[in-house]
Amino acid sequence: MSCARDWTPPSSLHNGSARPAPELHLYNSLVDAKVPFVPAAGPGSRHVSWYTCGPTVYDSAHLGHARNYLTFDILRRVLEDHFGYDVRYVMNVTDIDDKIILRARRNHLLEAYRATATDPSQARSGGVARDARAALAAAQAKQAKKVGKAHAERKAALERSSDPCGPRGDGRVVAELDTLLAQEEHVAARLAGTLAALEALGPSADAAALLGVAGDVLAEWLDAARGGEVTDPAVFRAHAARYEAEFLADMEALGVRPPTVLTRVSEYLPEVVEFVRGIERAGFAYSTHGSVYFDTAAFSAGHTYGKLAPWSVGSVALAGEAGADGKRHPSDFALWKARKPGEPAWPSPWGEGRPGWHIECSAMASKILGRTLDIHTGGEDLRFPHHDNELAQSEAHYHACGCRQWVNYFLHSGHLGIDGLKMSKSLKNFITIRAALESISARQLRLMFVLQAWERPMTFGDQVLGEARSREKSVRDFFSNVDLALREAQALADAAAGTLPERWEAEEEVLQAALESTAELVHAALCDNINTRGAMDALGDLIKAFNVYRSARGPGSASPPQRLLIRSVASYVSRILGEFGLEFGVTSSAGPEAAGRDETPAVLDAFAAFRDEIRRLAKEGAGAGQVLAACDSVRDGPLVDLGVQLEDRAGGPAAWKREDPAVLRAEQARRAQQAAEAAETRRAARLGRLRRDLDRFEGLAALPSVPSALADRYRFDAPGEPTADAGGAPLDDKALAKARKEVAKQQKIRKPLEDALEKNPDFLEQLRADIAALELEGGAQGAAAAGGAG
Amino acid sequence: MSCARDWTPPSSLHNGSARPAPELHLYNSLVDAKVPFVPAAGPGSRHVSWYTCGPTVYDSAHLGHARNYLTFDILRRVLEDHFGYDVRYVMNVTDIDDKIILRARRNHLLEAYRATATDPSQARSGGVARDARAALAAAQAKQAKKVGKAHAERKAALERSSDPCGPRGDGRVVAELDTLLAQEEHVAARLAGTLAALEALGPSADAAALLGVAGDVLAEWLDAARGGEVTDPAVFRAHAARYEAEFLADMEALGVRPPTVLTRVSEYLPEVVEFVRGIERAGFAYSTHGSVYFDTAAFSAGHTYGKLAPWSVGSVALAGEAGADGKRHPSDFALWKARKPGEPAWPSPWGEGRPGWHIECSAMASKILGRTLDIHTGGEDLRFPHHDNELAQSEAHYHACGCRQWVNYFLHSGHLGIDGLKMSKSLKNFITIRAALESISARQLRLMFVLQAWERPMTFGDQVLGEARSREKSVRDFFSNVDLALREAQALADAAAGTLPERWEAEEEVLQAALESTAELVHAALCDNINTRGAMDALGDLIKAFNVYRSARGPGSASPPQRLLIRSVASYVSRILGEFGLEFGVTSSAGPEAAGRDETPAVLDAFAAFRDEIRRLAKEGAGAGQVLAACDSVRDGPLVDLGVQLEDRAGGPAAWKREDPAVLRAEQARRAQQAAEAAETRRAARLGRLRRDLDRFEGLAALPSVPSALADRYRFDAPGEPTADAGGAPLDDKALAKARKEVAKQQKIRKPLEDALEKNPDFLEQLRADIAALELEGGAQGAAAAGGAG
Repeated sequence: MSCARDWTPPSSLHNGSARPAPELHLYNSLVDAKVPFVPAAGPGSRHVSWYTCGPTVYDSAHLGHARNYLTFDILRRVLEDHFGYDVRYVMNVTDIDDKIILRARRNHLLEAYRATATDPSQARSGGVARDARAALAAAQAKQAKKVGKAHAERKAALERSSDPCGPRGDGRVVAELDTLLAQEEHVAARLAGTLAALEALGPSADAAALLGVAGDVLAEWLDAARGGEVTDPAVFRAHAARYEAEFLADMEALGVRPPTVLTRVSEYLPEVVEFVRGIERAGFAYSTHGSVYFDTAAFSAGHTYGKLAPWSVGSVALAGEAGADGKRHPSDFALWKARKPGEPAWPSPWGEGRPGWHIECSAMASKILGRTLDIHTGGEDLRFPHHDNELAQSEAHYHACGCRQWVNYFLHSGHLGIDGLKMSKSLKNFITIRAALESISARQLRLMFVLQAWERPMTFGDQVLGEARSREKSVRDFFSNVDLALREAQALADAAAGTLPERWEAEEEVLQAALESTAELVHAALCDNINTRGAMDALGDLIKAFNVYRSARGPGSASPPQRLLIRSVASYVSRILGEFGLEFGVTSSAGPEAAGRDETPAVLDAFAAFRDEIRRLAKEGAGAGQVLAACDSVRDGPLVDLGVQLEDRAGGPAAWKREDPAVLRAEQARRAQQAAEAAETRRAARLGRLRRDLDRFEGLAALPSVPSALADRYRFDAPGEPTADAGGAPLDDKALAKARKEVAKQQKIRKPLEDALEKNPDFLEQLRADIAALELEGGAQGAAAAGGAG
Repeated sequence: MSCARDWTPPSSLHNGSARPAPELHLYNSLVDAKVPFVPAAGPGSRHVSWYTCGPTVYDSAHLGHARNYLTFDILRRVLEDHFGYDVRYVMNVTDIDDKIILRARRNHLLEAYRATATDPSQARSGGVARDARAALAAAQAKQAKKVGKAHAERKAALERSSDPCGPRGDGRVVAELDTLLAQEEHVAARLAGTLAALEALGPSADAAALLGVAGDVLAEWLDAARGGEVTDPAVFRAHAARYEAEFLADMEALGVRPPTVLTRVSEYLPEVVEFVRGIERAGFAYSTHGSVYFDTAAFSAGHTYGKLAPWSVGSVALAGEAGADGKRHPSDFALWKARKPGEPAWPSPWGEGRPGWHIECSAMASKILGRTLDIHTGGEDLRFPHHDNELAQSEAHYHACGCRQWVNYFLHSGHLGIDGLKMSKSLKNFITIRAALESISARQLRLMFVLQAWERPMTFGDQVLGEARSREKSVRDFFSNVDLALREAQALADAAAGTLPERWEAEEEVLQAALESTAELVHAALCDNINTRGAMDALGDLIKAFNVYRSARGPGSASPPQRLLIRSVASYVSRILGEFGLEFGVTSSAGPEAAGRDETPAVLDAFAAFRDEIRRLAKEGAGAGQVLAACDSVRDGPLVDLGVQLEDRAGGPAAWKREDPAVLRAEQARRAQQAAEAAETRRAARLGRLRRDLDRFEGLAALPSVPSALADRYRFDAPGEPTADAGGAPLDDKALAKARKEVAKQQKIRKPLEDALEKNPDFLEQLRADIAALELEGGAQGAAAAGGAG
């Protein structure tokens, strides 16, 4: 029937006349150019497989890592949320690695050394000073060799590159070697600084101070001497587990979407071994001395080795691979490393050992994603040798099936530099993510990276941070203004009772046109290698257009502000920011953490746990005191952590308020301080009282007995009755009565002491002990206060 | 540089080998077929212009409207959120229209009539009865004409369609006329019902009762007589404003995304006049008697009139356009209507008047969206004549620029039927949206439409509603199970302190494969004319796969459940449901209003109140039983009201799940029922036991005393010792021993009774009282059960 009807498909209506729509291009390191992105499953398919090099969990993650993982998160979110791809995102955790082994072993050895060195009974500080100097000398010698090697290689490369007949790309290898040389020289300079610090400490420095300055070199030195003695696998595993948990917590704090799959090397050993066997079977690997090496010469005969950084192939300094017994060519690299003392090991057909640096990524990515990856990401520094070796290994493994392109798009995020050098652990010029998050919010960090070209290097500092903060403020102001404009418009509408015009005038058309052209610009920018900076600039112009509209529709305007239009502008801006992982609620400007989070589950957890505790107490027949203590402790612990301030009120129900947990904890600390001060006042008062008592009772105890006290007046019989005057003359009735009064008076003076002694014969000792205890308590508090301030 | 590198674009890697990706097709009424969707701005452009026929605001919106606007909302959300289009969505509000004018005027006249008729001082009920009969007779006569007309036209069309040489499509016009005839007959039957009701009221009925039955026909009758006297424009404006506000509130309650622009006819009169002038200038309109008509004959000379329903062209009954002075052809329709008494009017070059039925949509859509619309939507009933006339007007207006396709995609939502007829105001078989929302949640309504093919008619009733509710429950259960699974997995992870395996086994691969194939199926279904039903079915299969996975990873599984995987499944399901406007938070399943709402304050209230209660009990020295009862009662009362199901588990912490409070209360009632049944079983058993006891003890009590029982054998002394045989002969030692044995035997028989009496002398009375109480209890329960069943 449709053929008989009068309809023309729009595609044929504007044949050739319409502007071609932008399509997604990505900067692919395999060609170092922006190329159209087409999924391996075919154009129009929504499925994308993606592998990203995850962390080697040997230490805390720093801002350089934050740049990589936030960059990949932004790229992934745009692919998923803007372009509608269904991404299978795999991230590995390298938990078996030279660095982890070294760091775990060195920490272990250094701690043992520290325990001995700082034990006063052993008084080893002279020994520590000697050890530190020896360790430093060894480190400096080693580093000098590295500098020399980098220098020599750079010089050779420079000569080759100025030779017009030389191979292509050597200009680039010179640049790479320049960077490497700068890094090695930085390390050498740092060691010189350590020497200066050691000398400044002088000959009488104590062990703790020496270890503070030279701990690292000492650890390296100890490891060189005794590393082989560390055999407990738990030393390595615990080290990795700790930093993995810390890394994942950092990622959550940064709002990074969790991967679809997380692969730990330690859980994929069988796959790694099988992958190496596959390469060996294909003829691209050889085993020697229990290790297996990749045979770059054999591979290069029919494949390209060094697709990502052809100019780096052959550089021993850049490859970072030490020569070893039986290795045939300097470019060859280890697939499997034979067991060495002081290292964890796993079984294999070649004997016990562990995976090489690169093989895990090929094996695990292949296991989860198959023989073609759409996207592989990693930091720029992994381009060579790590990623080139991955590519070679995988192509070698899949040689038989003719798969010559294991990765279609290789995306490398640019370095984060600081003070002219890349931020890195080895250069010790890093800021950890958790330290950064104390002064920079996760949203500011993300915005800082959103404002950069993801594939270019950037320098961390006040300039980029200041820009992110000012951009954040302008967006926050925009949402506050939207909020206010909507409330004002609502008030107008309420006042007009349904008669407020909805008609669009020129001002509305202008803002709508700005919205639509922004949508085009943003989309075009995101198609252009996910240029988030360009998209943010377009949003900035839309915000300006909104501000112009808002002034035009302020008080005194003939037409009211149009709520539907304001809402669509705000929700567009919010949607695009959301695609970058930047949350700014329309009605919330209190930071991403506070916006719209539902705390109900956490409160329910606390509620259920409290109720469990009460039931347990009831069943165990606990007293009222214990139950009330449980009530206090849920108020002061779990609820405070949830940001809930619960206030018990006499004669009425408890009141609750929500507050920043930090504010609540500060309030708790203030109250604890007041309570401590009150306790101290009470202690001091009591101590004074007890001291006065002791004086008095000791005075009483020192008094002579009644007969002795009155010996100058009377004589007494055995039971202590006065019988005669001092001269021995018997007392008459009147004198006896008088004497008895005097005796009673004397007895009354002594009575308090006698009463007390009757109750507790050790009463005075007790009093002295109480005073001593109170004095001690005061001293401890004073010391604690002094310690707290120090 | 890129040419020198070894990289092959993926597009050339799988040339021809990859399956072609699905692309979006829409069922276009202009061809009555699914055709590829291409925006007017070009393939790949994200900009889409969309106009939808909004409400004529003369009465409350009903479920038929809900179907249209929810359907368009679903289509729009899928285009925006799934396919990434930036839609400029325009909806008009028809606030000048025959129906509004009539309804406003009739209401106005009827209210005035009612005020007089029901004034007791005027006692007009005899007059009201007479007026009602006259009005009914007039209405029936008018309706009989309509039925006759529809009948005659249907007959003629049927004859033409059975003529093999007749024009095409007449089978369809017969079907349309069948529907029309059924509707007109339904109205006639309703009028007959009104007559019967009037007669049943009898001659002495009061005015209010008469108005209750015949108000509508009276209003029509009053309007025919005195409508021309209504001149205050506020009568019309206030009527429209009221129902516009109500409609917009309904849309908000249904969660329909607001349009980008809302156009009210009353605010676009200059554009309407200008549009009519343009048609006139182009030679496709003529004015007569102050009205302007569209010249279908002139238009048909070079254009197609009736693109959407060519078979309906020429049907006077379907066109619904009355003949008028100076109108040249029955198909011609009014662009501008000259003022009539009792109608609001606006100035124009042709004198005062108002827009015709169709012109506003052409004028306003053109004003906001320009000369080509990507999409135009409306209910199926607007296809002819409204939409065909819009197309004709707009093409006529743009004649000079050669734009012959004003709308590229015309989408019509299918009717909502009830009891075999379309739900509509004129048939009075409607359920208003607000009435429906009292028993059906907005989410259930939306889900009901999501489960239908949007372009097909559907019947509202228990079947579709029941299906929506059961689907909702399964999705809600899914999210509760995800929530619980994640919390359980978290507890495992916490217990394992970072050593829980992350490795995927076969079960994880199976679930991930299900997730990926679901994503493909959902996308393919949405490409296939936005087949939301197909997408929901695919999600249902994914939920089943999740349930299988959950069982496989339950307690006792060798591997732990993988949280990342569970989260990606849940967030995928949540994302697709969100694309349909269905909100199910992962941690909330208590209706769309509650979804994502922060329940923390309510939970904190309950928590604080519970803690207050525990503190009070502790201070009053309450026993464990009271404390445990308080723990039970917070679980069964406040928490249930908050939609929290708390389950105490022996030997472990209590588990909580969030659920619809209604579901929880039903579950509570079920448990209470079971408990009552168990109690009844226990009561019956105890009653039987007590009755048996009573029989036995009463039997024992009825026994003669030991001496009496053995009186035929022995004589006894006062303390009850046997002394002689029955004949009086003293007993020798042997006989005495035998006698004592017999006595002991007799005493043993009686001992249970004696023991019981010793403990409680009223023991038998107590037993009888207990039995009576249990009997009474059973009677009360029986009565309650009978009451509950009645």
